[in-house]
Amino acid sequence: MSILEKINSSADVKKLSEEELEPLCGELRSFLVKSVSKTGGHFASNLGAVELTVALHRVYDTEKDRLVFDVGHQSYIHKILTGRRDRFSTLRQYGGLSGFPKPREAEDDAFIAGHASNSVSVALGMAKARTLQHQEYDVVAVIGDGALTGGLAYEGLTAAAASGEAMVIVLNDNNMSIDPNVGGMASLLQRMRVRPGYFSFKRWYRDVFTRIPPVYQMNHNIKEWVKSRVLPDNMLSAIGLDYMGPVDGHDVKQLECVLRWAKEMKRPVLVHVLTKKGKGCGYAEEHPELYHGVGPFDPATGELKCSCKSFSDVFGESICEFAAGSKKIVAITAAMASGTGLDRFAVQFPKRFVDAGIAEGHATAFAAGLAKQGMIPVFAVYSSFLQRSFDMMIHDVSLLGLHVVFCVDRAGIVGSDGETHNGVFDLAYLQTVPGMQILCPASFAELHDQLQRALFELDGPVAVRYPRGGEGVYRDSCCEDEQLLREGTDVTLLCCGTMVNEALAAAKLMEEQGVSAELVKVNRISSRPLPVALRSLQKTGRLLAAEEVCALGCLGELLLRQAAERGIELKAARLLNLGEGVVPHGKREELLPNYSLDAASIAASALDLVSQHEGEA
Amino acid sequence: MSILEKINSSADVKKLSEEELEPLCGELRSFLVKSVSKTGGHFASNLGAVELTVALHRVYDTEKDRLVFDVGHQSYIHKILTGRRDRFSTLRQYGGLSGFPKPREAEDDAFIAGHASNSVSVALGMAKARTLQHQEYDVVAVIGDGALTGGLAYEGLTAAAASGEAMVIVLNDNNMSIDPNVGGMASLLQRMRVRPGYFSFKRWYRDVFTRIPPVYQMNHNIKEWVKSRVLPDNMLSAIGLDYMGPVDGHDVKQLECVLRWAKEMKRPVLVHVLTKKGKGCGYAEEHPELYHGVGPFDPATGELKCSCKSFSDVFGESICEFAAGSKKIVAITAAMASGTGLDRFAVQFPKRFVDAGIAEGHATAFAAGLAKQGMIPVFAVYSSFLQRSFDMMIHDVSLLGLHVVFCVDRAGIVGSDGETHNGVFDLAYLQTVPGMQILCPASFAELHDQLQRALFELDGPVAVRYPRGGEGVYRDSCCEDEQLLREGTDVTLLCCGTMVNEALAAAKLMEEQGVSAELVKVNRISSRPLPVALRSLQKTGRLLAAEEVCALGCLGELLLRQAAERGIELKAARLLNLGEGVVPHGKREELLPNYSLDAASIAASALDLVSQHEGEA
Repeated sequence: MSILEKINSSADVKKLSEEELEPLCGELRSFLVKSVSKTGGHFASNLGAVELTVALHRVYDTEKDRLVFDVGHQSYIHKILTGRRDRFSTLRQYGGLSGFPKPREAEDDAFIAGHASNSVSVALGMAKARTLQHQEYDVVAVIGDGALTGGLAYEGLTAAAASGEAMVIVLNDNNMSIDPNVGGMASLLQRMRVRPGYFSFKRWYRDVFTRIPPVYQMNHNIKEWVKSRVLPDNMLSAIGLDYMGPVDGHDVKQLECVLRWAKEMKRPVLVHVLTKKGKGCGYAEEHPELYHGVGPFDPATGELKCSCKSFSDVFGESICEFAAGSKKIVAITAAMASGTGLDRFAVQFPKRFVDAGIAEGHATAFAAGLAKQGMIPVFAVYSSFLQRSFDMMIHDVSLLGLHVVFCVDRAGIVGSDGETHNGVFDLAYLQTVPGMQILCPASFAELHDQLQRALFELDGPVAVRYPRGGEGVYRDSCCEDEQLLREGTDVTLLCCGTMVNEALAAAKLMEEQGVSAELVKVNRISSRPLPVALRSLQKTGRLLAAEEVCALGCLGELLLRQAAERGIELKAARLLNLGEGVVPHGKREELLPNYSLDAASIAASALDLVSQHEGEA
Repeated sequence: MSILEKINSSADVKKLSEEELEPLCGELRSFLVKSVSKTGGHFASNLGAVELTVALHRVYDTEKDRLVFDVGHQSYIHKILTGRRDRFSTLRQYGGLSGFPKPREAEDDAFIAGHASNSVSVALGMAKARTLQHQEYDVVAVIGDGALTGGLAYEGLTAAAASGEAMVIVLNDNNMSIDPNVGGMASLLQRMRVRPGYFSFKRWYRDVFTRIPPVYQMNHNIKEWVKSRVLPDNMLSAIGLDYMGPVDGHDVKQLECVLRWAKEMKRPVLVHVLTKKGKGCGYAEEHPELYHGVGPFDPATGELKCSCKSFSDVFGESICEFAAGSKKIVAITAAMASGTGLDRFAVQFPKRFVDAGIAEGHATAFAAGLAKQGMIPVFAVYSSFLQRSFDMMIHDVSLLGLHVVFCVDRAGIVGSDGETHNGVFDLAYLQTVPGMQILCPASFAELHDQLQRALFELDGPVAVRYPRGGEGVYRDSCCEDEQLLREGTDVTLLCCGTMVNEALAAAKLMEEQGVSAELVKVNRISSRPLPVALRSLQKTGRLLAAEEVCALGCLGELLLRQAAERGIELKAARLLNLGEGVVPHGKREELLPNYSLDAASIAASALDLVSQHEGEA
């Protein structure tokens, strides 16, 4: 029986002898390689967090103590150690384990994660609740150096420092976010990393603490004396955090020792841990960015399946083409150069490429400054992360009518990353921004052409939204605001973006059933009316909208408002969409039927709509 | 002729002799007291920024150079110096000068301001644009220590440091935001402030630079040598910013000297300026928080008109009452304890009161942590500032269904603060948050009762939204989801919140014209249907919605969707609202008619709606 097979909780990890820890870490790495190479998932960051996670479970009991992961895709080891090893083969699959911490999955997952930089704020809230309720548990946040580029982390750190709450913040510093890290904080960490040697906490700890048992009886002066000997002065201590580090993140015994000490300080303490992304797996250590998030791969060689061309690729190619022709274009990413397809631009136009770090708010305000002075900033960003810029889009971009182009990637259902990453709220929040025009390409060619329109023909704030992955059967390109893709008489089928593929198939299915659907595809959403769709509605009297977004702000709603204000009377309307927008992880094609958004369901809904009201026609 | 009368631009300020500067500052203060005591406005912060603003205009030309104010309510002196002295009596009034920088008002206003912490990001964008375009102008951001508590400022500062762009960041440090400042950064600044004496830049500057003219020929080594002598080591230099300070913010000659030097460094430099809020005006110096934003007052004594009871006051009283009965309640503000009415709570329940600084994102994630561990967090915040929490409301609060109560103050038109402060997007963005329930009290009694409901009866995320100012003729309290306030047959009048006052008056006007309006007031907005409103619609066949929010996400739209999905056929519908939501400054009662939202216009719209379609009835 392997060591790993004995482990189902923090308590089990604690039962191990010191000698079993390193072998356990080895087993965990093998398990991880074997499992993730089959399911795909976040790989390199979990390899780097093996020893740290084991050490955390030696010191804390995650059923009771609150371990808050930042971003959370580095929580696999934690999941494997807390009773979810057997289900680990279902990772990120529909109905299976989530790739992120999820309290509904296990009590050991203290909080949800997915968006960066929130962990310190959340952990501080938990620590404060504990103190107010006079309860006895510990709170730990684990945050990467990448997440430290986000202002939310700074807000949390300064508040934690001022609070005096007992809590430990573990800085898991692998010198990368997904792409190499940027900004003033990154260069500070760089300097902190190269201090001569790691601090040898173990010796200190043993020397001091074995002479004054029990630990909690130590008086404050001794603690202060110890601290003053080992805690270097830096920015983190300048704002009032006790700082310990840097510590070798692959020395599990040293880590345990430091964490134990940090816990006993009963104050806000930051433990700076240096880890290596991909640790212990040659190809992942060498190309950590390649093995950040992966599909299935060959566990021996690391060979990845060649992925198909995506909308992100097409965006990357197109923006390079346009930037070659216009010196005004500046491309901005929030730590996602490769994910958004901007890596080529970064090489080709280094002066006009800006990686803002995980700082979407700054990226948007920065873009506004560029636009005000005559440049054309293009901020390529995932739909769910752009939520962080909601206020800046209104305040800094929209109120001055500035021409900033938001290239909103991962719009719609994203698949295996699940509910924290779905891009399903953007139609709502983008339409809320005054003057925002939203372009919705449905094919690669259309993305190219609509991006061109966004850059050079439109003015004011513009968003171009497109999904994860590739195109479907629809491969045309149209830059009109609306397209009448198919004429019909019984019902108006309304859609935008790649949902057109399902709508086209549905219309065919309906035809086979003798129902004539008129298909309207909307390419630009703004405050203007949709004359083609309105005319169609007047003709058919029935609306069926099929959309991969949440209900609020969906196209169907917009059209219903426009129809009502124009006195167009409807016999029936049904809006198919993602409702409140909380869509679990799984493949898009597995998920669509749950919302009646696959072709067959759309057709069935339309047939129902038509038959119900047939008598009234 | 006074000195001030000669000044209409930066150029005019530069023409003055050194001896004229102090008298000018005196004249500016007198002008400010005289003018703001009549119009009302932001007072204490502008008194503190007199010398700094004069010095900025000595060094920069704001027609060409880009001076970016953070928050911007401290830009009065700037406006007075740049050709707007004669119009200053129209400040914050409908059609008059804005109380914030506004590029559409003058080229000297480089950017919009109103929300905190964006200035460094915006200025960096401008500096980058300048460099890419090989242009020659300077960029300066002026940011208060309060705004430095916001993570966006940290994102901007770290990016500026890493960029190497020539720009100057002036930290106007008066040791307050609107309320006294909080957090780890505040305590750091506290320590930086008490360094022994101000740095005497003037002497240094003269000593060094007069010997090596012209200044720009100095070689790098000399610059470095100078810097190493005067720039202390602290957090700001740790992230890579050159730091100069602290400097006496009321010594105009010293300030001019330091700014000139900072400008010549052609790198990102932070100049730390210490100012006193209310400087030069006894009562304002003594009570800067009282004279932050004021109505008209007696210029001699500072006596303020007693303000009427507001929704904020009622919230403050009610939350104290409920907190006395439940130890679970924790109240959170983002640097607005007095503005939101939480000042009493802060005194009565200091352990359960948290001022998060200007860090709405953190406040929300922190609240989520509290809620996850069993507390009932109440985040009282202005509607337009809560926009900063949009992502955290979805990601940290909603996805776990946590019971966080958002008390959304200043919902609707806020009046003289204008477009950056209007709370007109909240119905849209709050409805986008999955599971959010929105309560809309219309009277003081209703706010009390609905707050009780939000705290103790409802679960998951809840928002209670209420406007600036006081209640109207409607003084009842109802905790039903919908109220049928008046029965009628011709048209359904739909409203929520204090717009009920206009709706009631409109219904009476309509009655006089022989039209019978049914009045439905909605008290809770969620994903559930509105049966009372739907029944009314079925009966009258006509909808007139009157709402003080932007079009997207308005109640009328929600009801139209529900009606269409239920096959309720309408004869006519008109949605009166604030359209895209960009509402200028002015009194609410002056602005409502522009959107047909005063009683007379609502009545006229309804009559029009009924008469148009009378034949069809």
